[in-house]
Amino acid sequence: MSDNFHEKCGIFGIYSKNAASDVTAHVYHALFALQHRGQESCGIAVCSEGLIQHYNDTGLVPDVFTKDTLDKLGKGGMAIGHVRYSTTGQKNRENAQPIVVRHIKGSMAIAHNGSVTNAAALREKLEREGALFHTTNDTEIILHVITKKRIQTSSIETAIEQAMHDIQGAYSLVIMSPSKLIAVRDPQGFRPLCMGKLHGDFIFASESCALDSIGADFIRDIEPGEIVVIDKDGDRSIKTHCGKQSGLCVFEYIYFARPDSVIEGASVHNARQRAGSFLALEHPVQADVVIGVPDSGLDAALGFSRQSGIPYGFGFVKNRYIGRTFIQPSQEERDRSVRIKLNTIEATVKNKRVVLIDDSIVRGTTMRRIVNLLRETGAKEVHLRISSPPFINPCYFGTDIDSRENLIACKMSIPEIREFLEADSLGYLSVDHVTKIAENAKCGFCYGCFSGKYPVPEPAPAPKNKFEFKIGELG
Amino acid sequence: MSDNFHEKCGIFGIYSKNAASDVTAHVYHALFALQHRGQESCGIAVCSEGLIQHYNDTGLVPDVFTKDTLDKLGKGGMAIGHVRYSTTGQKNRENAQPIVVRHIKGSMAIAHNGSVTNAAALREKLEREGALFHTTNDTEIILHVITKKRIQTSSIETAIEQAMHDIQGAYSLVIMSPSKLIAVRDPQGFRPLCMGKLHGDFIFASESCALDSIGADFIRDIEPGEIVVIDKDGDRSIKTHCGKQSGLCVFEYIYFARPDSVIEGASVHNARQRAGSFLALEHPVQADVVIGVPDSGLDAALGFSRQSGIPYGFGFVKNRYIGRTFIQPSQEERDRSVRIKLNTIEATVKNKRVVLIDDSIVRGTTMRRIVNLLRETGAKEVHLRISSPPFINPCYFGTDIDSRENLIACKMSIPEIREFLEADSLGYLSVDHVTKIAENAKCGFCYGCFSGKYPVPEPAPAPKNKFEFKIGELG
Amino acid sequence: MSDNFHEKCGIFGIYSKNAASDVTAHVYHALFALQHRGQESCGIAVCSEGLIQHYNDTGLVPDVFTKDTLDKLGKGGMAIGHVRYSTTGQKNRENAQPIVVRHIKGSMAIAHNGSVTNAAALREKLEREGALFHTTNDTEIILHVITKKRIQTSSIETAIEQAMHDIQGAYSLVIMSPSKLIAVRDPQGFRPLCMGKLHGDFIFASESCALDSIGADFIRDIEPGEIVVIDKDGDRSIKTHCGKQSGLCVFEYIYFARPDSVIEGASVHNARQRAGSFLALEHPVQADVVIGVPDSGLDAALGFSRQSGIPYGFGFVKNRYIGRTFIQPSQEERDRSVRIKLNTIEATVKNKRVVLIDDSIVRGTTMRRIVNLLRETGAKEVHLRISSPPFINPCYFGTDIDSRENLIACKMSIPEIREFLEADSLGYLSVDHVTKIAENAKCGFCYGCFSGKYPVPEPAPAPKNKFEFKIGELG
Amino acid sequence: MSDNFHEKCGIFGIYSKNAASDVTAHVYHALFALQHRGQESCGIAVCSEGLIQHYNDTGLVPDVFTKDTLDKLGKGGMAIGHVRYSTTGQKNRENAQPIVVRHIKGSMAIAHNGSVTNAAALREKLEREGALFHTTNDTEIILHVITKKRIQTSSIETAIEQAMHDIQGAYSLVIMSPSKLIAVRDPQGFRPLCMGKLHGDFIFASESCALDSIGADFIRDIEPGEIVVIDKDGDRSIKTHCGKQSGLCVFEYIYFARPDSVIEGASVHNARQRAGSFLALEHPVQADVVIGVPDSGLDAALGFSRQSGIPYGFGFVKNRYIGRTFIQPSQEERDRSVRIKLNTIEATVKNKRVVLIDDSIVRGTTMRRIVNLLRETGAKEVHLRISSPPFINPCYFGTDIDSRENLIACKMSIPEIREFLEADSLGYLSVDHVTKIAENAKCGFCYGCFSGKYPVPEPAPAPKNKFEFKIGELG
Repeated sequence: MSDNFHEKCGIFGIYSKNAASDVTAHVYHALFALQHRGQESCGIAVCSEGLIQHYNDTGLVPDVFTKDTLDKLGKGGMAIGHVRYSTTGQKNRENAQPIVVRHIKGSMAIAHNGSVTNAAALREKLEREGALFHTTNDTEIILHVITKKRIQTSSIETAIEQAMHDIQGAYSLVIMSPSKLIAVRDPQGFRPLCMGKLHGDFIFASESCALDSIGADFIRDIEPGEIVVIDKDGDRSIKTHCGKQSGLCVFEYIYFARPDSVIEGASVHNARQRAGSFLALEHPVQADVVIGVPDSGLDAALGFSRQSGIPYGFGFVKNRYIGRTFIQPSQEERDRSVRIKLNTIEATVKNKRVVLIDDSIVRGTTMRRIVNLLRETGAKEVHLRISSPPFINPCYFGTDIDSRENLIACKMSIPEIREFLEADSLGYLSVDHVTKIAENAKCGFCYGCFSGKYPVPEPAPAPKNKFEFKIGELG
Repeated sequence: MSDNFHEKCGIFGIYSKNAASDVTAHVYHALFALQHRGQESCGIAVCSEGLIQHYNDTGLVPDVFTKDTLDKLGKGGMAIGHVRYSTTGQKNRENAQPIVVRHIKGSMAIAHNGSVTNAAALREKLEREGALFHTTNDTEIILHVITKKRIQTSSIETAIEQAMHDIQGAYSLVIMSPSKLIAVRDPQGFRPLCMGKLHGDFIFASESCALDSIGADFIRDIEPGEIVVIDKDGDRSIKTHCGKQSGLCVFEYIYFARPDSVIEGASVHNARQRAGSFLALEHPVQADVVIGVPDSGLDAALGFSRQSGIPYGFGFVKNRYIGRTFIQPSQEERDRSVRIKLNTIEATVKNKRVVLIDDSIVRGTTMRRIVNLLRETGAKEVHLRISSPPFINPCYFGTDIDSRENLIACKMSIPEIREFLEADSLGYLSVDHVTKIAENAKCGFCYGCFSGKYPVPEPAPAPKNKFEFKIGELG
Repeated sequence: MSDNFHEKCGIFGIYSKNAASDVTAHVYHALFALQHRGQESCGIAVCSEGLIQHYNDTGLVPDVFTKDTLDKLGKGGMAIGHVRYSTTGQKNRENAQPIVVRHIKGSMAIAHNGSVTNAAALREKLEREGALFHTTNDTEIILHVITKKRIQTSSIETAIEQAMHDIQGAYSLVIMSPSKLIAVRDPQGFRPLCMGKLHGDFIFASESCALDSIGADFIRDIEPGEIVVIDKDGDRSIKTHCGKQSGLCVFEYIYFARPDSVIEGASVHNARQRAGSFLALEHPVQADVVIGVPDSGLDAALGFSRQSGIPYGFGFVKNRYIGRTFIQPSQEERDRSVRIKLNTIEATVKNKRVVLIDDSIVRGTTMRRIVNLLRETGAKEVHLRISSPPFINPCYFGTDIDSRENLIACKMSIPEIREFLEADSLGYLSVDHVTKIAENAKCGFCYGCFSGKYPVPEPAPAPKNKFEFKIGELG
Repeated sequence: MSDNFHEKCGIFGIYSKNAASDVTAHVYHALFALQHRGQESCGIAVCSEGLIQHYNDTGLVPDVFTKDTLDKLGKGGMAIGHVRYSTTGQKNRENAQPIVVRHIKGSMAIAHNGSVTNAAALREKLEREGALFHTTNDTEIILHVITKKRIQTSSIETAIEQAMHDIQGAYSLVIMSPSKLIAVRDPQGFRPLCMGKLHGDFIFASESCALDSIGADFIRDIEPGEIVVIDKDGDRSIKTHCGKQSGLCVFEYIYFARPDSVIEGASVHNARQRAGSFLALEHPVQADVVIGVPDSGLDAALGFSRQSGIPYGFGFVKNRYIGRTFIQPSQEERDRSVRIKLNTIEATVKNKRVVLIDDSIVRGTTMRRIVNLLRETGAKEVHLRISSPPFINPCYFGTDIDSRENLIACKMSIPEIREFLEADSLGYLSVDHVTKIAENAKCGFCYGCFSGKYPVPEPAPAPKNKFEFKIGELG
């Protein structure tokens, strides 16, 4: 609903002491809790007595996995899972994860959240050495790099440690070999990854809400650069890549993560509420009610309300049954039916001076419609407040905004944006404040999309669909 | 999620000046807005040049109606639609509405929200006269009663007017003959029904949110007892059944309707917020935060917060992707995985004295789990406040609580309920206050479920599944 | 494949001594054996302890009934089933059978094969008395007529016996009341219906191949006009309508029935083979090979070969995987791709004088393409022989040819048809011979489609879709 | 139905002069004609302007490819397709073909019919060099071997030519690079592959019936060992691997291929009929009728009849609607319901001495049931004749019989088999005669399954599921 961009993935893994445990059901329920991180495709790989089976498809978790499919995956001692968002509209089952392959020293399943910034160079090098690629995603490249190392090393974890010297960019990984479950986070820790325990079984998840969903306890975040290996002897860490400048994506707090998750010690809900409070301090306004755009603007609206003293209100009802298969109104109907997904509550906004809060603006087209909707409903004034700074730089680390071309803040000044959105006033959170929203967080942040300063050198922008099967010069 | 009972239906109708208008798409989008009133089955009947086609099935609106199905229904001059909740778990396509039949003077489609209290007597009488019944729902009985009258009368509306003398109970109807669209509301007006206009086309809907969803204007509520007839000459009213003691179901405000709807002049959101305010006056408490159970307790929680001055907070995240096909955890997993659907936000409740608001308690089992969840998350105290009175009497007028057997408030005193729920304190809204929540509403209310006083004499309880195809004595 | 017309239905019923028997599975397998009698929709109704449950849908038997659906229908003491062909292309779930209704003295399920010739008059009379119709098929009319009688009689069978005085035309019925299974055949016996037994359980089926499919023994055919009632006391007959001039549709032997069925004592395969033999006697020709159009012309081709001494050969391969959902070639592709469904075997026909046998010609367009295919494959001569007489009169008794408008033999002389089909010669079986194909059959035949002489007075042709929900004069 | 073994695959490819041609529809219809060669999964890869898109799934061609799916694949200049049978019962989408990969010099799609006999050794070598495998089928191994060569060569066809030195066993391939379509047949020519033309467009297909289905002309068979390359300059051949001892699988004539196909100049139908004639010469018998088991025994039955003078008859009706999803009868029902799939025609067999023809016997269990069925139907004697020799050796070249363990002829003598099958007599075609059935065929045959003499040295038997993802020693 909101005028937003998207996270690309969520990952999960479980290692049970019991070799015939209900790990498949746990991954299923955990992926359901991580569904907000990716709605295009999903998959589960289960390892039972060293044999890995997997099932991936496009669609939401409850649509892809039937009772029958889960039963066929069966019980096992380990399992990993993945949810994926994709920027391409087309159904693309081949790109679903986990990817499962066999190499000379065994088999391996991998699930990845992030984006490898030197993927094109790595892939070209691998192809020159004879590698074949079945998919267009960078996860397959990671697999090849690790496998190349694996041939010359005595363990999967050593291979991973060596491969990390070659792989650049954002990658939170869960990897399953026939006997080990391994979690990896890139040295900057762009994407979150945490560890939990359930009756002694080890669990890795993109967010702590996935732990909660299956009743597991949160243990700790994986450190940026850390490799955690779980096998029959328990857990151990490899920290040779730790200690660099960390750069967790600040948008995880602003929008991507679920408000009930806690990342690097900071509550996501709390961070959003704080963003709203800072916003009230930076851009005060005289008004009668503060409302948020559901669902992403609600927490910040509460913070703005508490800080400003302006009453918090429910301005909208979002249709609860919105799903992928909904048939859109025809163009002729569209203008008069914006309220199918989001309707205003007249009692809250009519004859009121309204402060409207959302987390970000990408294109601005949806936000413009929402502002108009409030005016039609009788709002006297609409003061728009955005709980993040203007979005003016591409993200190379695992989101779908990899160029500046659709960013309204790259094309217009803030007064122009305000005019375009037809708001009475417009205020963005400052870059300075956005770095402070995650109270007591134990790490540094990447806020390159706002500042242009990234924790690693800015990679050369890669062409879209760079690995599509295009014609070769030689054929 | 919430420990609630259910409305049985939502209805919608549209009459266009244009005989080949896109009425099917309008019904589709409007039913989508009314989906909260019934998730078991849905259907659309379209009238094009006097020929009525329909398609009904079990499932949610976006699942039942594909592009293909809508295209087959095609364009027309009129259409009606229905969403239905059913108390029986089984798929029951036969009971989906609208029902379309042919009788001696033409054909007819009907969609019904409510419950006929003398259905058994009417059906027996009709069967004695040779009537055959294809379904087990009371809508088919209404059809037969109207048709019997239709044979001896000169118009469908006269037949309806006469039939209303025989039919008792709750019924909001939209009826489509080959040339007329007719809206009917029972003399007490148990269930809501309103009229709107879109570019001169007439519309009837259970709730005003359905009008908003297609960009139509709200005109007025249908009066209790009123028959509104739309045909090529415009609209006209028959009011011979008007003027009785009205009794709109107060639970429409408390829980059934969408908060963005306005019923009988009163905003649903506002009514819920007022219920919360009254509750704060009746059952004050010292606490740190007020939270509501999503989604039904949120509005009242805001009212409680505003009245009490205790800060409003977000206590829970509800999984947005909950749907019908979700595979439930096994019994062994269930205890530790209550958080799949509803998870707590620790930052909001930990070490806090929490006021927890919900709209009602039916069985109490879900509420007990929610209270426990808050304690596990670190709430110091949990003060439960319910924005309606104790539910102690059956409802005969279109909900799924037609006996006392599952009502916790029939079995326990309020202190016992508090103890069962393991709450620190418990307060219900008084019956006196519940009648005042709908500010400026232009009608009377039925609150028999709380008071035992119904606007019509209490009907004899009918057996469940009373019209199932059971063995006859004679065979 | 063949240029043919269609039977409308197949029916089946079973009564078990055991009240919780696997009757549902038996009906499922039997309907599968009767699938050739109707591919549009199918349904099963099961009676368990007097409670009747049913499930109908459009589609083939193995597509409509999943394991899950069959399990929900469950075990019972009786069950009936139906397969249906429909002349309308549209999905029409409402018209699927069995129809299940409740009336004053119990409930009833019915499955019908045939066509009521006075349906329009009966329906108008019933509508005048207040009857409502949910479907457009004549089976619902039969239900109403029986129910009207049922009110004043002491048993269902008496009601049926009385109703038979009013219902004209073709009807083989299986009817299930809560305690009885009843089979009915109209006085002419237009459509087949036979009785079998399986371990003491009684069975009724349109064709004996359905008995074979579940391992049951054939007992006898139901007599034209007979009512057979099965209940806990065994079976008994009512024969008050027996003894009239019988008129089994001769096309059951020629095309409709499965060759492994035996009807009225005559083997269907044998009748077809005899038709081929008579054809060889009537229209001899000098040729090298006799081939049949699969599947309907194969048996007659064998008869022609045996009688003429010309070797029998396989001229075609029909694709085994043809199904409903096959995507047709585009118009541009169509001419060169007639061989998708039916391809020739060059080794059989090249440089040969070919006798081509099919059972009938309706429009002639498909046959013309088949003749051309043979020529392209190198046949020197193509002598077409049709194992039935020219089809020149409509059928009112349960097929889809209810007018003369598409019949090639109504528009052209036989020499003209030969020329149109581009065959070297053309011979039809004589009317005289067609009446003799069913060796030792114990009944008379209807061959009105060839002769214009029907066993009952020819009914006035009814308009197509006569019961569609069209506009009423009064609305 | 018949007691048979299975071919593993069918392949097809088309190269159009027109870069935006309807190649997808052609592959769809051709795969439909090749469906008998594999029913487990299928797929199509389309090349448009050098970009290759593909869609594979488990299921029959008309189920996997909807109008929507075909439209998404769109138009192109080249396309290849595949149907696959698998010995494993499990749904295995990953193993569906064509496989599409990208390598350093472009991209490539491949479809394979056959079996690589040194797959395990090749795979181990490739894995040692760092190759990753995504599937468990040998086609992926072929891809890797070709790609390894491709890096050091100037063209895809040179790489294929070199790779053929390393790859042993049976392989008919169609390979698509961004600019070329290439057909390859192994030096023995175990599996068929032919070339056709349609309006100047080149086509490759496993069988000529696929050419017929789209109206294309047959040009010639690809020679054993030949590589045919099609590009914008037309077609050219590489024959460096030609000239070895050829060994077309004789079972293509006996059972696998469609009777309307012509392979290596010999008609499949004719070959089967000849097999029946030889059988009559070898194993004469006094009898009244010759019948074949549908569909595979029918052609040979006709040959037996013609040679022996015993009349040909139709002994069975096979249910036309048998499909994958049919629910099998329960064990208790099974004995009495063998006739669901195959029913006898009493008029043909009762009181007759029957000669029953089938093409082969694998386990013998189905055949035993068929013999019994004939006796129950009243056959006086059942003389079984098999139109191939006893099957006593495994096949390593693309079928599903890769061990002796299920072969009845390995466990019993012919008299013992006769007794087990309860036939009155039993005769198999001699090995001597089986080599002569394909009249005028231009190649040698593999009949190792009968004789134990293979055209190449017998490979060491590989373990089943040899490439499943099993535990590695090192992990």
